[in-house]
Amino acid sequence: MTNPRLKLGVAGLGRGFMLLLPTLASHPGISLVAAADPRSEARQQFREDFDASTYAEVADLCADPEVEVVYIATPHQFHRKHVELAAAHGKHALVEKPMALSLEDCQAMINAMRRANRWLIVGHSHSFDAPYLKAREMIDSQAFGKVRMISAFNYTDFLYRPRRPEELDTMQGGGVVFSQAAHQVDIVRLLGGDSVKSVRAVTGSWDPARPTEGAYSALLTFNNDVFANITYSGFAHFDSDELCGWSGELGQPRDPDQYGFARAKLAEVDSPEQEADLKNARTYGSGFFLSNSRPQDSTHNHFGFVLVSCDNADIRPMPQGVQVYAHTRRYLEPLPPPVIPRREVLDELIGAIRNNQQPIHTGEWGMATMEVCLAILESAQNGHEIKLSHQAIMP
Amino acid sequence: MTNPRLKLGVAGLGRGFMLLLPTLASHPGISLVAAADPRSEARQQFREDFDASTYAEVADLCADPEVEVVYIATPHQFHRKHVELAAAHGKHALVEKPMALSLEDCQAMINAMRRANRWLIVGHSHSFDAPYLKAREMIDSQAFGKVRMISAFNYTDFLYRPRRPEELDTMQGGGVVFSQAAHQVDIVRLLGGDSVKSVRAVTGSWDPARPTEGAYSALLTFNNDVFANITYSGFAHFDSDELCGWSGELGQPRDPDQYGFARAKLAEVDSPEQEADLKNARTYGSGFFLSNSRPQDSTHNHFGFVLVSCDNADIRPMPQGVQVYAHTRRYLEPLPPPVIPRREVLDELIGAIRNNQQPIHTGEWGMATMEVCLAILESAQNGHEIKLSHQAIMP
Ligand SMILES: NC(=O)c1ccc[n+]([C@@H]2O[C@H](COP(=O)([O-])OP(=O)(O)OC[C@H]3O[C@@H](n4cnc5c(N)ncnc54)[C@H](O)[C@@H]3O)[C@@H](O)[C@H]2O)c1
Ligand SMILES: NC(=O)c1ccc[n+]([C@@H]2O[C@H](COP(=O)([O-])OP(=O)(O)OC[C@H]3O[C@@H](n4cnc5c(N)ncnc54)[C@H](O)[C@@H]3O)[C@@H](O)[C@H]2O)c1
Repeated sequence: MTNPRLKLGVAGLGRGFMLLLPTLASHPGISLVAAADPRSEARQQFREDFDASTYAEVADLCADPEVEVVYIATPHQFHRKHVELAAAHGKHALVEKPMALSLEDCQAMINAMRRANRWLIVGHSHSFDAPYLKAREMIDSQAFGKVRMISAFNYTDFLYRPRRPEELDTMQGGGVVFSQAAHQVDIVRLLGGDSVKSVRAVTGSWDPARPTEGAYSALLTFNNDVFANITYSGFAHFDSDELCGWSGELGQPRDPDQYGFARAKLAEVDSPEQEADLKNARTYGSGFFLSNSRPQDSTHNHFGFVLVSCDNADIRPMPQGVQVYAHTRRYLEPLPPPVIPRREVLDELIGAIRNNQQPIHTGEWGMATMEVCLAILESAQNGHEIKLSHQAIMP
Repeated sequence: MTNPRLKLGVAGLGRGFMLLLPTLASHPGISLVAAADPRSEARQQFREDFDASTYAEVADLCADPEVEVVYIATPHQFHRKHVELAAAHGKHALVEKPMALSLEDCQAMINAMRRANRWLIVGHSHSFDAPYLKAREMIDSQAFGKVRMISAFNYTDFLYRPRRPEELDTMQGGGVVFSQAAHQVDIVRLLGGDSVKSVRAVTGSWDPARPTEGAYSALLTFNNDVFANITYSGFAHFDSDELCGWSGELGQPRDPDQYGFARAKLAEVDSPEQEADLKNARTYGSGFFLSNSRPQDSTHNHFGFVLVSCDNADIRPMPQGVQVYAHTRRYLEPLPPPVIPRREVLDELIGAIRNNQQPIHTGEWGMATMEVCLAILESAQNGHEIKLSHQAIMP
């Protein structure tokens, strides 16, 4: 790494940031120089953990001349505004998934960054996880023939983790389509290798106490004739980590005997305020900080069961590598264990900014994923198949 | 069992018959009294195995006054004709899945049996398997709340097993939609508990040497708002028995180290004739007979991975019982091991004929399943969602 470290400012010191904190803190190409959050305890913690400036307002963070790139990990509904602020100050931006809540917002973000001539990367999403990138590379090697069908499902307790009220309101970006389909769609788009043509989907809002979509199943067709089923339940009792060697979404070892934890914990809560407090109790600056943030990085991050049917093999990205079921044999294409978890997202960011390498996860990419997510909601509402038109081709 | 044994004649002594033979031979309510098949070696074997009459023609079997019920296990394209023959002679019929190749044929079969005032049962299909029937019973107990979503997938080497030429020609009933979706649709209809409203599906014909559908993924909506994804690949290298404790479709123990067998075996074949010979070499009368027909009945039959998301639990039928993932605990609702495999299909047949018990798998039921299968083909061809109209309600 001969380039100087990228000077990064963080907008939003919540759970998204917490998940990327071990990466940000240990990546050799990154310096954390500033942060913005309305919560003073989070700002104070950031100053304690890093030699850095903090701000209550994202606008002030963006104005900080030290900052080269802004990592936007604020709630979804602020992504557009905060990307526009970064652009207005000539900063690059890494914006969390989902990119935004409407195609109009996505387009505005792309336009702002284009005008500013700065990079826009959308992530972390799980399509950055090494097993999916490795699977894509293996597919590109042509050794396995064409991709034909993809099946992906994930069963979690997503909807029963402590939430802010707006996370349970679809109009404000709540529910699993915005938060979780964004991952799953990104993964199948990466593996499908072409633009998505159509979406037919059904969503489920089964719990009146959590009044947003907690589940969906969608059938996607691609322009190269690949088709994919993606299914998600955040109401689940079954946990698809069972099919991933009991390795969790973050690559951490899961204890199969710790069962029903999220629902049991939530049952102790009496009001939305108490629930938001419970969420905040697990947040940066109150309970969590740099030195206790390191996840056990035994295996790679993943997003449930994924199987890619190719002509000459079925390919199954797993937390330890890529499991290949070929004509005559079955083997694991192993991946070295992650030293810095989720580093791929920063590698892509740095590659673009410092080395002008074409990233996968551009604004156009993020917008294409959002078009699929919005089509899932629309198809579920209208009962129709949705044809897509804003699909970026794979770079 | 106070009733006299049901005197059953078999039409078609092929693989379907072989799979039910252990059941037919050991069920206390059944006497095998006759059979029809154009293959003389099969007829001879039947006479050696049973004290029974044999015929080259199904018409003669149906005319045999000894026969009360005809089990029709001839190739799909003959099902209609053979059911009509049974009806014309006043016999009940058990007809193999798929019921027929068109709705017109299904309706004709229903009409013929109605006019004759005889029972028509469609099966064996895997929806008769004890774990699915048990899951249905558990759902009916109301203990788990409403069914919301079903996910079912099955990955097999179906397309690489030795086939007759017409089994690879969709027009003649070939491919996995007729042969395998018939099982999977039956299962999700049983568990979904209402009529199917719409189908959107994509199919895959990926191997020019096996020019029929070998894979599909379909999104089904039900009139009670349940939705289901069903996915199948008969081109698979991954084997979903891996997720069923390495228990096979017939409940037999699978050896995970016997890998790639079907493709390797088929690679030795040079022509369609050789392939048909290979299929016949595994057929009743040549290689197989009663005393070597008994499968190892260690666990129940199954049809791959099935997960039913209910309000209060996820329910996963497994070869040993029904795995329940409830709010606070996870447990197996065990099933006694099958003494007579696939006996449920004969129990339903006998219950109807002898005790006038309403069966599930009537002609109307079979026709409703075929409507879904045909909609899968049509939706895949036209790229449209198909609305259904011949859906029997659960009895
Ligand atoms: N990639 C992943 O795995 C992942 C995981 C979690 C969250 N996320 C994403 O991160 C984003 C944030 O979600 P979260 O779960 O961290 O939420 P959160 O509620 O835990 O954190 C949001 C943080 O932003 C701060 N904030 C709120 N308004 C702000 C403003 N106007 N300016 C600056 N800071 C503000 C809050 O005080 C809080 O610290 C979402 O878009 C979410 O999808 C991604
Ligand atoms: N439920 C199950 O698990 C299952 C499994 C296999 C087959 N099946 C069903 O059984 C049926 C037969 O399939 P198969 O795999 O056994 O095929 P097969 O080719 O193995 O057997 C067909 C048999 O029917 C005989 N036959 C052909 N034409 C006939 C006629 N006109 N009259 C009488 N007999 C005739 C053939 O000689 C042969 O013995 C199909 O509908 C299939 O879907 C069901």
